[in-house]
Amino acid sequence: MIHETASLGRKIELGAYVVIEEDVIIGDNVTIGNHVIIKAGTRIGNNVLIGDLSILGKTPSANQSMSRKPEHAIQPLVIKDDVKIGSNTVLYKGSSINNGVFIGDLASIREKVRIGDRSIIGRNAMVEMNTRIGKQVTIQTGSYITGDMIIEDNVFIGPCCSTSNDKYMGAGNYKHRGPTIQQGAKLGNNATLLPGIIIGKNAVVGAGSVVTKDVADNQVVVGNPARELNK
Amino acid sequence: MIHETASLGRKIELGAYVVIEEDVIIGDNVTIGNHVIIKAGTRIGNNVLIGDLSILGKTPSANQSMSRKPEHAIQPLVIKDDVKIGSNTVLYKGSSINNGVFIGDLASIREKVRIGDRSIIGRNAMVEMNTRIGKQVTIQTGSYITGDMIIEDNVFIGPCCSTSNDKYMGAGNYKHRGPTIQQGAKLGNNATLLPGIIIGKNAVVGAGSVVTKDVADNQVVVGNPARELNK
Amino acid sequence: MIHETASLGRKIELGAYVVIEEDVIIGDNVTIGNHVIIKAGTRIGNNVLIGDLSILGKTPSANQSMSRKPEHAIQPLVIKDDVKIGSNTVLYKGSSINNGVFIGDLASIREKVRIGDRSIIGRNAMVEMNTRIGKQVTIQTGSYITGDMIIEDNVFIGPCCSTSNDKYMGAGNYKHRGPTIQQGAKLGNNATLLPGIIIGKNAVVGAGSVVTKDVADNQVVVGNPARELNK
Repeated sequence: MIHETASLGRKIELGAYVVIEEDVIIGDNVTIGNHVIIKAGTRIGNNVLIGDLSILGKTPSANQSMSRKPEHAIQPLVIKDDVKIGSNTVLYKGSSINNGVFIGDLASIREKVRIGDRSIIGRNAMVEMNTRIGKQVTIQTGSYITGDMIIEDNVFIGPCCSTSNDKYMGAGNYKHRGPTIQQGAKLGNNATLLPGIIIGKNAVVGAGSVVTKDVADNQVVVGNPARELNK
Repeated sequence: MIHETASLGRKIELGAYVVIEEDVIIGDNVTIGNHVIIKAGTRIGNNVLIGDLSILGKTPSANQSMSRKPEHAIQPLVIKDDVKIGSNTVLYKGSSINNGVFIGDLASIREKVRIGDRSIIGRNAMVEMNTRIGKQVTIQTGSYITGDMIIEDNVFIGPCCSTSNDKYMGAGNYKHRGPTIQQGAKLGNNATLLPGIIIGKNAVVGAGSVVTKDVADNQVVVGNPARELNK
Repeated sequence: MIHETASLGRKIELGAYVVIEEDVIIGDNVTIGNHVIIKAGTRIGNNVLIGDLSILGKTPSANQSMSRKPEHAIQPLVIKDDVKIGSNTVLYKGSSINNGVFIGDLASIREKVRIGDRSIIGRNAMVEMNTRIGKQVTIQTGSYITGDMIIEDNVFIGPCCSTSNDKYMGAGNYKHRGPTIQQGAKLGNNATLLPGIIIGKNAVVGAGSVVTKDVADNQVVVGNPARELNK
């Protein structure tokens, strides 16, 4: 089911039962798994690997209870060169995935997200809308990256971390602000960050910590609430 | 692959490689994504949106080690009007999803669950069997809703929350009891609730808190174990 | 799309749009769901149930930023008798799943994992590479089992638990060591284990605890950091 307006490069390896919609543009040397769905307008570079049962370029939707409605005029999903995408992933339109990025199985990335070169989005990790992720960032399996969040270069986020951008927990129509994680900072597994928190450069957050206030550059914090180690 | 006994209404938009089994009933103005599987007997209302690669009406199964076997005589899955269902979801038979509900990508809902009008089940959220969810409830991305749990109207559950219904951790064949979350209560991200806990009306549980005993109406608790704030 | 070199036993129930690659061997009395993909060389026993939209025998891949590259010479995936596999699962090659194992929907198991008889891998649980899981183990919904981990017989891991094997959080090319959970130990929901931790026989870790040092046989620990109960 490849739409006649889709443009495929050379050396395309195509799985079974694939759906490619109108105006999709695919580069050279791309492997497309079985049962993959590529939505209208999606642009894919060269040397890209797409796992089975994945959706690229999904349009956001909402119900009556959601205060934040998805925008209508949204750009196509853009995937650059040498990207590897796992199986059973759901990637929305309006996001850009840069060169050499790796996206694990069962991960999902919402609209208007930017991911820098060679970063890793682990299996089953969820990334919400409007978030910017730098270069060579590692986000491990099962971590939850909220919307309106900034993750700078070389940050390491262990498995099962949780972040939030909604201080008043659904109470109304105010500005959401996710955490900022500065260059080279590291989070241990299952760490919790509150909305708007800033984690300084090269800071370390221990596994299972609950971070309720900003962490300074190079600081190491642990516990619930997180406090500086050995103080 | 649409079974001849299936009944489809008017204005059905049908994706590629869809499987619709016997005795399925679908209303008017329904969009069915690619590679969707609708199991025997499932009933779907009007104005429903079903994302790609989703399964509706799955039959539960078990292995030898499970103390709780799934019941055999189980009703079909019922989906009411104006419901939106994400991609790669797995919804079991025996549950009912009321008007205007939104279910995110990669979510799963087990058998005998009831979900009230306009509630939101976030992406990758998991809901276990026999749980009742009220109206206008928000369950955010990645939260785990155990079985035998009651969530009243207008409750807000942040991302990555975890609940449990099994006090003796698999030790035998006793009655399981999940938490009860009363009207308007809110849970911050990555909060943990122990089995049988009651969270009172309009109570607030801070992010990363571990709730080991009941929380009174309007109380705000934080920490591990969770204690009243500023006390 | 069944490759001509694949060998299927008697009484195979085959869904729609299935892909079975070369040299796959399948026993008798096996049910294969719709849109299932079985990769080259995978071996499946008798009386096996495979849910819809699942992938069996996936080959690992990596990007430039990953210090641990997947091995090239890897054995096929081996699934023994009476195994039940959920929908939307992703199982890698090089692993072995023993008799009577149950794997929930949306779960994923990486390469070189061994799972003993009658164990349960819950819905949306993730298991990383090189991990050994004993017999009659229960891993509940959404738990994260890191790589290089040992889980002995009759262990119970509640929902949403998180483990880690990387003490220096991505800092280099050293040996990773996951936790060891000894016979009969139990973890409450959303517990966090640090790398290399040993949980002794029949020990109990409370819900939401953060375990930063070894736990002795029969000990009960709670809190962040976890300490012996009532001490």
